[in-house]
Amino acid sequence: MSFLDEVPWNGDGLIAAVAQDSSTGKVLTVAWMSREALKETVDSGRAVYWSRSRNKLWRKGEESGNVQKVVEVRLDCDADAVLLKVQQAGGIACHTGRESCFFRKLENGKWVTVDPVLKDPTLIYKK
Amino acid sequence: MSFLDEVPWNGDGLIAAVAQDSSTGKVLTVAWMSREALKETVDSGRAVYWSRSRNKLWRKGEESGNVQKVVEVRLDCDADAVLLKVQQAGGIACHTGRESCFFRKLENGKWVTVDPVLKDPTLIYKK
Repeated sequence: MSFLDEVPWNGDGLIAAVAQDSSTGKVLTVAWMSREALKETVDSGRAVYWSRSRNKLWRKGEESGNVQKVVEVRLDCDADAVLLKVQQAGGIACHTGRESCFFRKLENGKWVTVDPVLKDPTLIYKK
Repeated sequence: MSFLDEVPWNGDGLIAAVAQDSSTGKVLTVAWMSREALKETVDSGRAVYWSRSRNKLWRKGEESGNVQKVVEVRLDCDADAVLLKVQQAGGIACHTGRESCFFRKLENGKWVTVDPVLKDPTLIYKK
């Protein structure tokens, strides 16, 4: 029995995946994985997600170069989420050019952008 | 316009919620929030989720006492996940009596339990 069989894939065949920087502990992204994505992640050692908007495998960093090297994979108690501890290439996980996708903080009832853009996204995603 | 209106609630009216210990940086749980759950979380300062299995609001710690005091709430770039930085009462977030729900680690193709039970769950959930 494969470790993949222990995941109760949801109705869409997916599981939630949290990526955390293994050095800083910062939560970088929350994305989704299909069975194939989790298998390729483990086999390749690089985070591969399932893009729900593009409806295909999303090899994180394939365009930006900001790959996530996977240090550790964990599964939660009810097996509906995985946690990846990763080394984030370029120090940028977000397509907006920020370290983390969680750059908005709730302050007095408003979402406020509190983290800086480290690199102009137009320079990350070259035509 | 409320901060709640900026969340594109999924087909079930939910958003993924990651709870992270604000002191240790440890990822404790991944759960789900309804609009009502997120509102009550912000209003009360304690994590409230939506239990998909029980189909009702789940005030974290209501039975165990292991409440999560919310220090900070963040939203990700595509607004489909929130990150809560919390102070975890009792140091136990998982119903198995462990610090974190992510106590299984993938080792050589198997999920291996690597974190200890800190308190017998039968003592946490008294009849």
